[in-house]
Amino acid sequence: MIKDGVKSSGSEFVKLHGVEIDNTFAEAFELWYSSFLITAINKKWAFEAAREATGFGTSMIGCSSEAGIEGFYSPAETPDGRPGVGVIIFAVRKKLETDLINRIGQCVLTSPTARVFAMGEGRESIDTGYKMKFFGDGYEEVRESYGREIIVVPIMMGEFEIEKNLPVSKGVAGGNLIILAQTQASALLAAEAAVEAIDSVEGVITPFPGGIVGSGSKVGSKKYSFMHATTNENFCPTLKDKVEGSALGSEIGAVSEVVIDGISEDNVKRAMKAGIEAAVKIQGVKKITAGNYGGNFGQVHIYLRDLFE
Amino acid sequence: MIKDGVKSSGSEFVKLHGVEIDNTFAEAFELWYSSFLITAINKKWAFEAAREATGFGTSMIGCSSEAGIEGFYSPAETPDGRPGVGVIIFAVRKKLETDLINRIGQCVLTSPTARVFAMGEGRESIDTGYKMKFFGDGYEEVRESYGREIIVVPIMMGEFEIEKNLPVSKGVAGGNLIILAQTQASALLAAEAAVEAIDSVEGVITPFPGGIVGSGSKVGSKKYSFMHATTNENFCPTLKDKVEGSALGSEIGAVSEVVIDGISEDNVKRAMKAGIEAAVKIQGVKKITAGNYGGNFGQVHIYLRDLFE
Amino acid sequence: MIKDGVKSSGSEFVKLHGVEIDNTFAEAFELWYSSFLITAINKKWAFEAAREATGFGTSMIGCSSEAGIEGFYSPAETPDGRPGVGVIIFAVRKKLETDLINRIGQCVLTSPTARVFAMGEGRESIDTGYKMKFFGDGYEEVRESYGREIIVVPIMMGEFEIEKNLPVSKGVAGGNLIILAQTQASALLAAEAAVEAIDSVEGVITPFPGGIVGSGSKVGSKKYSFMHATTNENFCPTLKDKVEGSALGSEIGAVSEVVIDGISEDNVKRAMKAGIEAAVKIQGVKKITAGNYGGNFGQVHIYLRDLFE
Amino acid sequence: MIKDGVKSSGSEFVKLHGVEIDNTFAEAFELWYSSFLITAINKKWAFEAAREATGFGTSMIGCSSEAGIEGFYSPAETPDGRPGVGVIIFAVRKKLETDLINRIGQCVLTSPTARVFAMGEGRESIDTGYKMKFFGDGYEEVRESYGREIIVVPIMMGEFEIEKNLPVSKGVAGGNLIILAQTQASALLAAEAAVEAIDSVEGVITPFPGGIVGSGSKVGSKKYSFMHATTNENFCPTLKDKVEGSALGSEIGAVSEVVIDGISEDNVKRAMKAGIEAAVKIQGVKKITAGNYGGNFGQVHIYLRDLFE
Repeated sequence: MIKDGVKSSGSEFVKLHGVEIDNTFAEAFELWYSSFLITAINKKWAFEAAREATGFGTSMIGCSSEAGIEGFYSPAETPDGRPGVGVIIFAVRKKLETDLINRIGQCVLTSPTARVFAMGEGRESIDTGYKMKFFGDGYEEVRESYGREIIVVPIMMGEFEIEKNLPVSKGVAGGNLIILAQTQASALLAAEAAVEAIDSVEGVITPFPGGIVGSGSKVGSKKYSFMHATTNENFCPTLKDKVEGSALGSEIGAVSEVVIDGISEDNVKRAMKAGIEAAVKIQGVKKITAGNYGGNFGQVHIYLRDLFE
Repeated sequence: MIKDGVKSSGSEFVKLHGVEIDNTFAEAFELWYSSFLITAINKKWAFEAAREATGFGTSMIGCSSEAGIEGFYSPAETPDGRPGVGVIIFAVRKKLETDLINRIGQCVLTSPTARVFAMGEGRESIDTGYKMKFFGDGYEEVRESYGREIIVVPIMMGEFEIEKNLPVSKGVAGGNLIILAQTQASALLAAEAAVEAIDSVEGVITPFPGGIVGSGSKVGSKKYSFMHATTNENFCPTLKDKVEGSALGSEIGAVSEVVIDGISEDNVKRAMKAGIEAAVKIQGVKKITAGNYGGNFGQVHIYLRDLFE
Repeated sequence: MIKDGVKSSGSEFVKLHGVEIDNTFAEAFELWYSSFLITAINKKWAFEAAREATGFGTSMIGCSSEAGIEGFYSPAETPDGRPGVGVIIFAVRKKLETDLINRIGQCVLTSPTARVFAMGEGRESIDTGYKMKFFGDGYEEVRESYGREIIVVPIMMGEFEIEKNLPVSKGVAGGNLIILAQTQASALLAAEAAVEAIDSVEGVITPFPGGIVGSGSKVGSKKYSFMHATTNENFCPTLKDKVEGSALGSEIGAVSEVVIDGISEDNVKRAMKAGIEAAVKIQGVKKITAGNYGGNFGQVHIYLRDLFE
Repeated sequence: MIKDGVKSSGSEFVKLHGVEIDNTFAEAFELWYSSFLITAINKKWAFEAAREATGFGTSMIGCSSEAGIEGFYSPAETPDGRPGVGVIIFAVRKKLETDLINRIGQCVLTSPTARVFAMGEGRESIDTGYKMKFFGDGYEEVRESYGREIIVVPIMMGEFEIEKNLPVSKGVAGGNLIILAQTQASALLAAEAAVEAIDSVEGVITPFPGGIVGSGSKVGSKKYSFMHATTNENFCPTLKDKVEGSALGSEIGAVSEVVIDGISEDNVKRAMKAGIEAAVKIQGVKKITAGNYGGNFGQVHIYLRDLFE
């Protein structure tokens, strides 16, 4: 329900809760992912394992993958009746196997009381669990547990259990929304509100720190040819009067961005919509737009106004 | 003060708070590190940036570096009067530069309102801050601020500021303590208590998830020659009756480990001592020991009982 | 599904996940309550308001009411599309009005950006919202918003909004489960696991600190006639060898309790069941029992084994 | 160091970090308090006990006392070598005894693994610990432990230990600072920053939810004679154009307040100074003022500008 949305037919102008929704699209990309569930003795330890396993995973420009927490699961929702945290890892297909082994082997196997279960269905599967067995040095076992095929590795805290195969599939990375606000505080709280709303949408992650990007970028560089991405000067408040073509009017004091990766275009759309609806409720938010590269890079174009049809 | 320690001269047996301290040593290694301070608009955002920047950084076996949070700093303790989180990154010298650029560039530059300041003194310095300037695409500046040389990069949230040079020095990685306990719950709570005590020791990190290793390893493998590290079967409670030479008596139900990296051997020692003193207070803890490889790998040998001289 | 339950027909012995479920009942009481939803600009501030409003509210023996957090609500689930926290306050009927005014007036009205909405249906209603209007000193308004009748009070942070009437109804207080475990650590982690599982059951609170009671009591006193409740010596591990009739065998090192208040007997039963199923999964838990006073005080008797029929 | 303060001698105008510091004073009151330390098996449980014990304790208008967390203490700083949380309770002298018994008896005695130690020195002392012994029903003991006189009460989780006497002394309640900001988000983040900075000042609490008051009040009422306190219409942004004498210029969108109680006037002053220095760093903050009643009610007048002499 967009109770407070204003759709002015025949015009380019749509307002939601009094905030302009720009007539543009987020440009996103198809990308492979694997999603799995980490359970533990309590929520704290499921979360610690998941945070470590998804850290240093904001953008494929300088990280091995884009990784994040998908959601929290109550004991009633997990195969072993313990609290769980869902995780999704996005990477190019050929790097995904190594990345899963490293992230799970270094950050989940080592985490006290953690277990790993497959989440969702995949086009293909990776035998990450099977490969974890070698850590057992011959003492490992394969068991049918929780209605699944489980590798059991004896460890100091007891046993590490991981499902033999993890599903892999194609999703969508790089969905986004950009918030123009009167003050830095409004831009920050609005992006936080967007991330919190997106937290309850299934099948998506917001891979940047706390879900937010404070330094949105453009492709390439005007000055340093060796750079793949540099600051998006047209959205920098301190450059308003220094650059031609600044997108920021006089009332804009800061800009924040939320990037969303999801298991499908539909999931990303739901997340973008929920994020925008939350962001516009924060006082001082003036406009919502989105990041694209003219449509030439990404196969997926998500128009902001279509979200509110 | 080891008020409740029992030192039986001429014997091999020392008890602290009723818990046996094994007559052995932790085998640690010299390793390069860089430490820096992340400040932000509030504690939450300094922490988010630091968590992301130090994630996927438990062990150099499968991570690019060993990374962790060193401590929290109040506004009165930081150069810019904002809340701060200290971070330390350990890696081999030649990988440290790339790792700092990736971790700071992907996880701190992107984090809303974050700034980066050098912490401590180094033998050498790395110009990570200087290199960050290229993201500014020509709009960056060098400023003398906070009594330091600062690179200022315009970003969407305002300006990203980072000290031009970060110090690099040699520290000690792989300090550790191993806790043998009656139940898994005791082993977990004792390791948690150790980590919390270590949190207030300066100049150290505990790089594993939540500071704890649930799956301590031995070097190499008996069965799988391609494995560099496999489960330490002599400390696995489920293998007590299956392996020759299990280190676990009948009363031991689980074993946990805390690994400590520090800026000097002395810092690591203080952390190990604080951790042990906290762990022995948890009911059900039966023995404290440490991990070593016979002394052949690491240059630094820290004897547990010497900590309580 | 009680996949791992063992029901030995004709015997007094039922085990769940290997843990004995005692053949006894929890004795609970009918008690009035009011439940409401606090929303705020973000989850942190909905939580801060709810924590303050439900603090100092563990037991009617020495608190004005028994108060707790019922659950967290996503923006999609609240009337105003902001994050919310559900709160329930239990008290005797005649004290409930004053307690609501004090708790909401002191702890929610004062909390930045908070709003209050009625939750659920009540047999009766209290005009707490209406009474809040007097704080507005004539500047208050009544508005139809969010499909509800709302009192709007101008405050320094903007406007405080509260639904005019809050529902009041009869629920059940004093549901409980008692965990006997090998170590204090097991007793603590098992009670924590029970509380986390109960967190996802609707319509219930666990009013004690962190949901747990470490000092379960008996009615009255053998020695001090002026005391209404004193320690339950038969469940104290340090008194095992000092009292006749200790309920603790040699293998029990500590006992924890979780107390549950709910909007109906059925809700309390679901919570007790979820709590028990979570607690028995913790290693070192030996037996689950419940607290009663011989059945003479409370109108509601909840038999543990009936939960698993 | 007020590096960025501007003191224009002979004028009424002082700016700190570009923000006007009003030429006024906070009006505070002498009030009795007791401070104590809660320790527990870990930081989480010390915090849970402290949060419950200090809840529903914002203002003496409708709470039994003003209560809050004074700070966190590492294992190295506490009598029993466990993590601790300092608590301060302010109340009128004759109500303090009952309030301590209720808050400690209901919220700390019941909290798993908690202990209570006296903090600081008092003019007088209250035998709260001694009175807790009756819960032991004759099984309690008095012990000399941790260099203190301790009451030991057997409970289900083990033993509850509390120092026999708690100190009581006279402090100062109602110190405050008021933040005028461009947006609600700036007002909120600035007050949060102030609270975080105050968190590291010893001997003070900020008793309101999360430390912040969103609905600052004036004494009495113009319209409802039965009200002791009503909204401060001159500081309400939505009433800017409706009231004579609004204190808010056109650029002010919201106002937040932080109230501080401390063990001495000096502690309160240090807290106010730290809070102001943090608040002015948030973009969008326009002016800092303070709340007073013309100086007729409170004995303690703290001038804002004197803090920066």
